Amino acid sequence: MTNDNRVYLYDSTLRDGAQTQGVDFSAADKVAIAIELDRLGIDYVEGGWPGANPTDDDFFANPPKLETAVLSAFGMTRRPGRSADNDPGLSGLVNTGVKTITLVGKSWDFQVDVALEIERSENVAMIADSIAYVKDKAGEAMFDAEHFFDGYKANPEFALECCKAAYEAGARWIVMCDTNGGTLPDEIEAIVGEVTKHIPGSHLGIHCHDDTGNAVANSLAAVRMGVRQIQGTLNGLGERCGNANLISILPSLMLKMGFETGVSKEGLKRLVTVSRLLDERLNRAPARNAAYVGESAFAHKGGLHVSAIEKDPSCYEHVNPESVGNKRTIIMSNQAGRSNLVAKFREVGLDVDPKDAKVNVLLDKIKELESSGYSYDGADASFELLARRHLEAVPEYFRLESFRVIDERVWDKRHAHVNQMSETTVKLFIGDKRIMDVAEGNGPVNALDAALRKILIPVYPDLESLHLVDFKVRILDGDQATGAITRVMIESADGQGNTWTTVGMSSNIIDASYEALRDSLIYKLYKSGVKAHGGN
Amino acid sequence: MTNDNRVYLYDSTLRDGAQTQGVDFSAADKVAIAIELDRLGIDYVEGGWPGANPTDDDFFANPPKLETAVLSAFGMTRRPGRSADNDPGLSGLVNTGVKTITLVGKSWDFQVDVALEIERSENVAMIADSIAYVKDKAGEAMFDAEHFFDGYKANPEFALECCKAAYEAGARWIVMCDTNGGTLPDEIEAIVGEVTKHIPGSHLGIHCHDDTGNAVANSLAAVRMGVRQIQGTLNGLGERCGNANLISILPSLMLKMGFETGVSKEGLKRLVTVSRLLDERLNRAPARNAAYVGESAFAHKGGLHVSAIEKDPSCYEHVNPESVGNKRTIIMSNQAGRSNLVAKFREVGLDVDPKDAKVNVLLDKIKELESSGYSYDGADASFELLARRHLEAVPEYFRLESFRVIDERVWDKRHAHVNQMSETTVKLFIGDKRIMDVAEGNGPVNALDAALRKILIPVYPDLESLHLVDFKVRILDGDQATGAITRVMIESADGQGNTWTTVGMSSNIIDASYEALRDSLIYKLYKSGVKAHGGN
Repeated sequence: MTNDNRVYLYDSTLRDGAQTQGVDFSAADKVAIAIELDRLGIDYVEGGWPGANPTDDDFFANPPKLETAVLSAFGMTRRPGRSADNDPGLSGLVNTGVKTITLVGKSWDFQVDVALEIERSENVAMIADSIAYVKDKAGEAMFDAEHFFDGYKANPEFALECCKAAYEAGARWIVMCDTNGGTLPDEIEAIVGEVTKHIPGSHLGIHCHDDTGNAVANSLAAVRMGVRQIQGTLNGLGERCGNANLISILPSLMLKMGFETGVSKEGLKRLVTVSRLLDERLNRAPARNAAYVGESAFAHKGGLHVSAIEKDPSCYEHVNPESVGNKRTIIMSNQAGRSNLVAKFREVGLDVDPKDAKVNVLLDKIKELESSGYSYDGADASFELLARRHLEAVPEYFRLESFRVIDERVWDKRHAHVNQMSETTVKLFIGDKRIMDVAEGNGPVNALDAALRKILIPVYPDLESLHLVDFKVRILDGDQATGAITRVMIESADGQGNTWTTVGMSSNIIDASYEALRDSLIYKLYKSGVKAHGGN
Repeated sequence: MTNDNRVYLYDSTLRDGAQTQGVDFSAADKVAIAIELDRLGIDYVEGGWPGANPTDDDFFANPPKLETAVLSAFGMTRRPGRSADNDPGLSGLVNTGVKTITLVGKSWDFQVDVALEIERSENVAMIADSIAYVKDKAGEAMFDAEHFFDGYKANPEFALECCKAAYEAGARWIVMCDTNGGTLPDEIEAIVGEVTKHIPGSHLGIHCHDDTGNAVANSLAAVRMGVRQIQGTLNGLGERCGNANLISILPSLMLKMGFETGVSKEGLKRLVTVSRLLDERLNRAPARNAAYVGESAFAHKGGLHVSAIEKDPSCYEHVNPESVGNKRTIIMSNQAGRSNLVAKFREVGLDVDPKDAKVNVLLDKIKELESSGYSYDGADASFELLARRHLEAVPEYFRLESFRVIDERVWDKRHAHVNQMSETTVKLFIGDKRIMDVAEGNGPVNALDAALRKILIPVYPDLESLHLVDFKVRILDGDQATGAITRVMIESADGQGNTWTTVGMSSNIIDASYEALRDSLIYKLYKSGVKAHGGN
């Protein structure tokens, strides 16, 4: 190692992350994620386990071209009682043509005795033979010591013997895995301290799971004790409680602990983007409270905090939000005071005199709406429209008279087929002109959206580029079940890199969707500087 | 302190937790949560900040009766330049009649200079005077040293001086707050180690935020260094990235580190319940991957893991799930093998011969459904119905012929009022008898639900007690926006302590809701042992 300060990051999103409950990557997903990891500056991208499932086979048959990241394939040490040369698993790995292969093997005597039911010496031989074989054939070998910490607590000599066998057989990295995720930071620190007496830290890695909520701390503790490789996943994906979250670990390593990684300071500013792209691909709402990258990570609510932040951000911010690509936000809420509201105006680009009497009227209006269940958290476009309508004029681009949705489902006689129809009629005014049209869709909201566009696009061609990128439905008082208040949030984009979010609320999901759709259309027209059409 | 092993837990869910983005407790919510905390065995329940907002005033005007927990009120040290006797904030706190008062004050020189703009000696006097005053009037005083760790790093003498002033003035606890949440575990350890040379650990508390993902580790590190009080919140509520999560901390303290708390071993088994009750009150989906209490925390997906778990659970579980009231689950997924499926059957109470050829057919069917976007993760009732339909007969309680939903919204001339109507017609067969009926609702799904009940309850009175407790809508391919596939999950209850979850999926939200409603109705009838009605 030429630089003792350099920590290597090994991403297992595509392998261990694929074990997450509810996650099911396609080969195309895997390629896209691998390219993002490469672009971020991650050192190793574990692509999957060739031979374990068709998706991973597809992925390794057409692996992505990576600029700087090394692609690795994951597999097991050879089976008991046969040579490495003759092991179909190992030859399958080597045949992928990948230059780095990571092999998992046992290092807990209990697992060797109970799960494998083989001699302990055979387990050690399996490790040594397999590592030597893949190093010879592929170029770089890595050993994931499964259950290392539980194994070390039970029988330190045997756990170390397994790791040393891999190291002596030529493994570039020996990775200590806390497979069951139950080890606490002080235990990690003590055990890693012992291991570094036998294997240099520059050849040691750490692989943690979050079963006690300590995966990040455990990874950092190991690095402090000399370990120089961290295995983890984006957003902490992984089975059970997830793997160590590389997105949380990276900024602490680089901004606070003074380590270097393959990620540059500039690259670190893509962290929020990388985290959100993964959630988008999984169609998950990003965790608002995620360390560093969450939408709330630099959000300020209490009035006192907000006034202090205005004086000096370091009063209430541990790092500069921009260093990880995040931004400071001021939360609107019924705890919000005048200082929050004025700061929020500034955020959305509204230049208002805080002493303007209209500000008080708007504050009351927001409190009233929020107490009825509205939430402008995260729906900045609807907030901005509400504010602009009160503080200045927003053109009346159109005025709805009515809509009617008919949704029908009929089973044919043999129950083998269902005929389904969704149709919406919309009547609205543009200026003085009354226009009506009807459209079909594959659901009621889709048909409503289609009918609105049919009428509006000929008059306002700017709406042609508008498309909806996300549609979220949240039931507010779930105990009212199907009679509950529904909040619909719509995220829209215009193909020019702008996205905005609008909100609608009603006990009727179609009404709520209409409100959010309407705000999205108006926001686009307003921001494009379009004038209201007279309708003639 | 009589027992050096005893750690005190101080819950701030009702005060710091109320700062969470999107959270807005009513006074009734606060009372219910306080009672749950008391029942769990939490030592201190911080009820709020009297005088800060109407909700907190309501709460302290009618505080809940707690069995063992101590209710505390939060406030600030006196204002600069006046006596504690004359401070309206302090007298407001004392007037609540609460016996324990927690006062926050500055301990970072920078904040005293920049935010307060007062002499440092006056800051120290404010702390000492205020603590002495509330201790005298209320009985127990606590000092929250705001920004303590940032303050200690900048000026250790001053930070310590502030804490010592509180201690010497009679504060029972001096709580070191990592207000901005940026401190790492090794820094906590080093600084707390220094502080314990001046103030005994038995009088020290720790208050962490999760901005680096280390709030749990930081809290545990402080305890290892001698601190004996932890402040945190349920499920890690709190502004930005949240406070230290007491739900994650408790089991590690008790099951792994050998500490005692006010929570008994039996009480710890209510942890999952307490965590979920809070989410229910907030109408949030519980975090599946939460340490110890998440639905996925003991979920096993990989086929290899599942066979090992069947041999010996400690192979892949760091604690017994029952010790925290959780349970082992086997995940159905397209990575699922035969062993997962058979284990899942056992979980839902289906006794099947694994060699039965029907098991293979069902496995194929599940893979097919899941690849089309279905998910039985969390929808055990729909899974069970699917399995039972394949493996044995489920009675045909009813057969839908058609439904038609009409949803209309008309603005009156002056736009001041909207007329809204949702109406659903349902036609179905019960045995050979064709029955139709129509119902209105406040939305399309509500009207559909009402029409189904209107027809079914007279025939199947067991359905009278069925009510829907949660209704969740998830858009699967958000990039298709309003044309996206919608997954509806419905949680139902029967008032006898049984709850079950069903799933429906379609590009049409009404269709998807129908499927989930239908499964819920059938599941209830099937589990109640009701026979299909001939329709005569």
